Amino acid sequence: MKKVKVGIVGLGRLGLQHAKNLAFRIPHCELTAVCSVIEEEVNEVMQKWNIPFGYTNYEDMLENKELDAIFIASPSGYHCKQINQALEAGFHVFSEKPLGLYMEEALEVQTAVEAHPDQVFMLGFMRRYDRSYAAAKQKIDAGEIGQPVLIRCYGLDPANKMDSFLKFAKANYSGGLFLDMAIHDFDLARWYLGAEPEEIWAIGGSYARPEFDEIQDAETGAAMVRFDNNTTGIFVAGRNCAHGYHIETEIIGTKGTLRIGTVPERNQIVIMKEEGAIQECVDGFLERFEQAYLSEVEEFINCILEKRKPEVTVKDGVESTKLAYACKKSFETKTLINVKEESVAYN
Amino acid sequence: MKKVKVGIVGLGRLGLQHAKNLAFRIPHCELTAVCSVIEEEVNEVMQKWNIPFGYTNYEDMLENKELDAIFIASPSGYHCKQINQALEAGFHVFSEKPLGLYMEEALEVQTAVEAHPDQVFMLGFMRRYDRSYAAAKQKIDAGEIGQPVLIRCYGLDPANKMDSFLKFAKANYSGGLFLDMAIHDFDLARWYLGAEPEEIWAIGGSYARPEFDEIQDAETGAAMVRFDNNTTGIFVAGRNCAHGYHIETEIIGTKGTLRIGTVPERNQIVIMKEEGAIQECVDGFLERFEQAYLSEVEEFINCILEKRKPEVTVKDGVESTKLAYACKKSFETKTLINVKEESVAYN
Amino acid sequence: MKKVKVGIVGLGRLGLQHAKNLAFRIPHCELTAVCSVIEEEVNEVMQKWNIPFGYTNYEDMLENKELDAIFIASPSGYHCKQINQALEAGFHVFSEKPLGLYMEEALEVQTAVEAHPDQVFMLGFMRRYDRSYAAAKQKIDAGEIGQPVLIRCYGLDPANKMDSFLKFAKANYSGGLFLDMAIHDFDLARWYLGAEPEEIWAIGGSYARPEFDEIQDAETGAAMVRFDNNTTGIFVAGRNCAHGYHIETEIIGTKGTLRIGTVPERNQIVIMKEEGAIQECVDGFLERFEQAYLSEVEEFINCILEKRKPEVTVKDGVESTKLAYACKKSFETKTLINVKEESVAYN
Amino acid sequence: MKKVKVGIVGLGRLGLQHAKNLAFRIPHCELTAVCSVIEEEVNEVMQKWNIPFGYTNYEDMLENKELDAIFIASPSGYHCKQINQALEAGFHVFSEKPLGLYMEEALEVQTAVEAHPDQVFMLGFMRRYDRSYAAAKQKIDAGEIGQPVLIRCYGLDPANKMDSFLKFAKANYSGGLFLDMAIHDFDLARWYLGAEPEEIWAIGGSYARPEFDEIQDAETGAAMVRFDNNTTGIFVAGRNCAHGYHIETEIIGTKGTLRIGTVPERNQIVIMKEEGAIQECVDGFLERFEQAYLSEVEEFINCILEKRKPEVTVKDGVESTKLAYACKKSFETKTLINVKEESVAYN
Repeated sequence: MKKVKVGIVGLGRLGLQHAKNLAFRIPHCELTAVCSVIEEEVNEVMQKWNIPFGYTNYEDMLENKELDAIFIASPSGYHCKQINQALEAGFHVFSEKPLGLYMEEALEVQTAVEAHPDQVFMLGFMRRYDRSYAAAKQKIDAGEIGQPVLIRCYGLDPANKMDSFLKFAKANYSGGLFLDMAIHDFDLARWYLGAEPEEIWAIGGSYARPEFDEIQDAETGAAMVRFDNNTTGIFVAGRNCAHGYHIETEIIGTKGTLRIGTVPERNQIVIMKEEGAIQECVDGFLERFEQAYLSEVEEFINCILEKRKPEVTVKDGVESTKLAYACKKSFETKTLINVKEESVAYN
Repeated sequence: MKKVKVGIVGLGRLGLQHAKNLAFRIPHCELTAVCSVIEEEVNEVMQKWNIPFGYTNYEDMLENKELDAIFIASPSGYHCKQINQALEAGFHVFSEKPLGLYMEEALEVQTAVEAHPDQVFMLGFMRRYDRSYAAAKQKIDAGEIGQPVLIRCYGLDPANKMDSFLKFAKANYSGGLFLDMAIHDFDLARWYLGAEPEEIWAIGGSYARPEFDEIQDAETGAAMVRFDNNTTGIFVAGRNCAHGYHIETEIIGTKGTLRIGTVPERNQIVIMKEEGAIQECVDGFLERFEQAYLSEVEEFINCILEKRKPEVTVKDGVESTKLAYACKKSFETKTLINVKEESVAYN
Repeated sequence: MKKVKVGIVGLGRLGLQHAKNLAFRIPHCELTAVCSVIEEEVNEVMQKWNIPFGYTNYEDMLENKELDAIFIASPSGYHCKQINQALEAGFHVFSEKPLGLYMEEALEVQTAVEAHPDQVFMLGFMRRYDRSYAAAKQKIDAGEIGQPVLIRCYGLDPANKMDSFLKFAKANYSGGLFLDMAIHDFDLARWYLGAEPEEIWAIGGSYARPEFDEIQDAETGAAMVRFDNNTTGIFVAGRNCAHGYHIETEIIGTKGTLRIGTVPERNQIVIMKEEGAIQECVDGFLERFEQAYLSEVEEFINCILEKRKPEVTVKDGVESTKLAYACKKSFETKTLINVKEESVAYN
Repeated sequence: MKKVKVGIVGLGRLGLQHAKNLAFRIPHCELTAVCSVIEEEVNEVMQKWNIPFGYTNYEDMLENKELDAIFIASPSGYHCKQINQALEAGFHVFSEKPLGLYMEEALEVQTAVEAHPDQVFMLGFMRRYDRSYAAAKQKIDAGEIGQPVLIRCYGLDPANKMDSFLKFAKANYSGGLFLDMAIHDFDLARWYLGAEPEEIWAIGGSYARPEFDEIQDAETGAAMVRFDNNTTGIFVAGRNCAHGYHIETEIIGTKGTLRIGTVPERNQIVIMKEEGAIQECVDGFLERFEQAYLSEVEEFINCILEKRKPEVTVKDGVESTKLAYACKKSFETKTLINVKEESVAYN
């Protein structure tokens, strides 16, 4: 069986983790090229892991005819253009979320993906590949909780990353809390409920750090969504979670309820001390979703090898982005938003 | 120290529990009279517990000059009138929630209570007296989670009571899901957040049982509230909880998060069997709030003895009712409701 | 229905709690007399709770012909004699554990109880009346875990009480760790397994505080017991539990496992902070077993009223004491002890 | 950096998992040869994973001079001889536990390993490499629970594997419950307590399945150990765990307590249904220790590459085997065993 040769762009914290997985942990996969605008990053990875090709220019990497697939882990602002270019150049493409920073970009990617039906395109909604989230989906599909009626999703970044986020967000457009944090939850909600959003109301604010107001973003926000099968979505997103990285999802059905990640425990240890019985919590997405990051890439490679398409489609990315933008608009205008009417505007 | 002599009206399931507490478990309290329209209930309790006075007519009980206080556990539709009469007759009054089935009734009670400032009036928001809820309040007041930012409340009745509820609700006006179930949560939210609601959106529907549609009620509903200090409330209420009676409350603060009742466990047993590790869940309010029902009445009696007022005021009842009615209106009209503008209408 | 009139001896921490229950929380029961060698305690309780009779001399209280029952909550060294005297004087008797500080005392009580078959005698093995422990018994009897095979019991006192215990134990004979702490667990093991101990090995030592060595006691100890149906008991007792009062019991059966009190949580709150997700723990037996202390006394009073005998018998006290003394001997002699051979010596 | 070329012997369930890890998931490692007496297994793996060399005869594999290391995952009865041969042939060796089925074999391996000080030898005590167990060790070494005083270890195999075990054990010598199951726990106890066992008492029996008696083994057994620093070890091993594969470890210290794996939960899902709140449990060691099996092999490869020795030594295997045999003897002779005196016999 031939190996799929992959070139990755972006060697930041998540990019590096992906690169390591591609290089060492995926059967029938070879990390053949790395690309970053920071030359030292490229050199360091090439040497340490014995990678044959390195680039500081993305277009140059696309010229490499040995490669089968391009893996995009660059900053969000580059996703749309880099996906387009890679598809045009004939590669299979994996891109980290989001499809782009703007709705228009997401739609542009959709057009491009649809124009290249024989190439595998996969979006990094890794949660679907997390063991717990995947098992929840199976249970729901098997009818274990009856008909899903309501989903509640928490996506909370640790407080200890708030400073660095604020520094970044003052200088760059992040997309805001709902696009940046809740987009995974929007995808999960659509996936579990089997429905599309119809109406939304989003609120929130700045509490510990008024700087969020200054950049028109929220420190902690909440959105409630009515889906087109009259089910309900509740989304809480935030950047000030004292105990760590809290990703929790609950699906209430007519015959039972499923919770994933009630406490974001780091490991299976409980320590009992004067303060009580304590479970330490995970600190970030790399720790929480280590297995999911590996499994999604394994699926991407297998799709290429087996000439099939992943379950996560570009449409999933587009629809989640629409919902995120509807939230953003609701938050900014303080009104109830009809998502479907909104989306007419994009077509 | 003299004993407070109490007459109770209503000997249904909750009434009987209150009567038992009043008769046997409250220091310096004596259950002196019982009243119910069902004569057998009255006779049975009088004999079994050796109660001196029994009535089938409420007005007759109010004539009893031995009594110090009246305890109202009759159906919700009688609360307003009975509170008024008891206050007029000079008694201290404890009433089960709600103040009445209609907003006008709640306001009427408020007027009556304010007209009798020397009599103790207490409303049965028992959750404030539950050990866990009370400890949570102390922790919040002590600043353990910083500034509260968001509260999430679940109030879910067990599925096994859905049939009897539907039978009742087809024949009677129950007030609807938000008044009947979520009102406790509205009180908790105001209590923990120290704020009043400003805007609300409520949605929901019927899923397992279409009969809820027929009576313009929801089987499961959700409401999101923006409070006047820009904090957020999320409320889920329902009548179809497969695993039992699920009351859960979470307060997210700028420095920590508190959860009360994550799993509505019946006791401290975990049983591990083929299916997994199982915690059985409580079946209803009497089981979950046994201690709270006792403690609230103990507080009522102590207030009378010590000539002070309870922390729960008639205003708490009025404001929670307002919020419940705003939810009802939002649910029915499918619009975002400004609670403060609504409430102008009542004045 | 007439009220059972009770006189209590011992107004220490637990005695006072019992007194309060007897006075205010038990139907058909009246706390008629209180007795303590400390006169102020007697006076204070008499005044505060309006108790008609007070004594500083136990024999004097036994002269009171109004009383129906005597409740013994005095120091362990007095139990045997006071039980004997009260039975002789014709009273029903409830005694806190243990039956006595020495095996001979326990046997003496057994003889006395058997000589007064028409009087109710009950021993304060309150755990059997704790909701969780009682439900576990029902589940086991219903076959939910098949045949019990192994029981594990933890009985750990909080570290913050170690100082006061050491001060007490240097001046008084406490019976040692196994008699003082593990005796409840020995009763539970016999109850759940339906078997009697055959062989035992007990070890342990002093770790944080060498003073335990000086008084020939253990700070933390463990005992393993083979029962006469070849099942196993594992007992851990200690006086240095950092997180509080930890009472945990597990029964492994051929078809399932039951755990009671995995984490000795104080209430239903989980607080999530920088350190992790924290459950605070109970601080002592009054907090953990509040409901059980009430329910056992309710059962005692009901036994008197209904002229029946409680499930906990004097034999349960005797057999648990035997096991405790076998542990003590094993710990001191560092040998495997045959409990049945030991007990021959007592007969 | 050169790749370590590994040949594996044994392609059973665990062997195959190791082979997959060696082939695809370990940086700088190559699975170069596979060996099994079952030819089809060899062929299948060679083809599926493109492995260059395959053998049905172990000695033939040892002739392959391309290999750097031999990985032994054959049945326990072969370990001793195969380790010896591989060391003699100059290879680095990783062997699954145990070192051998008999104490003499373990000592033989020890002699062989000591005779080849420049070759890496590692024993498959994978639990030390499990994230939770490793973190516990760090916490203990950092003093978070003070001085360890008592360790409790559960090692329970799922009931659904009892049939196949009994079939195997009737035809083969398994070593018995303590050698087969508890040996991991003996290693953990020595590791966490930093002490060696001194005295032991082991009991147990057959409850659901009398066949265990016939083969002089126990269905469920327990051992209590006094270590040479006067700390205590409690070990429960079994083959009839209704809820799955239950590995739990608790270390009680003078300043706190650590628990690992309180409930052997399969994933982060809680499902709430009529029966209660349910956490599904893991079914076996491959599921529970997937990460540990990977990490231990990664450590083995890194030790070879970095010319250092792993923390797990052959002595750890020998001492754990001694303890297992002392348990076996205690169980069979029904006496208290002095482990140190026993071990004199082996020298």
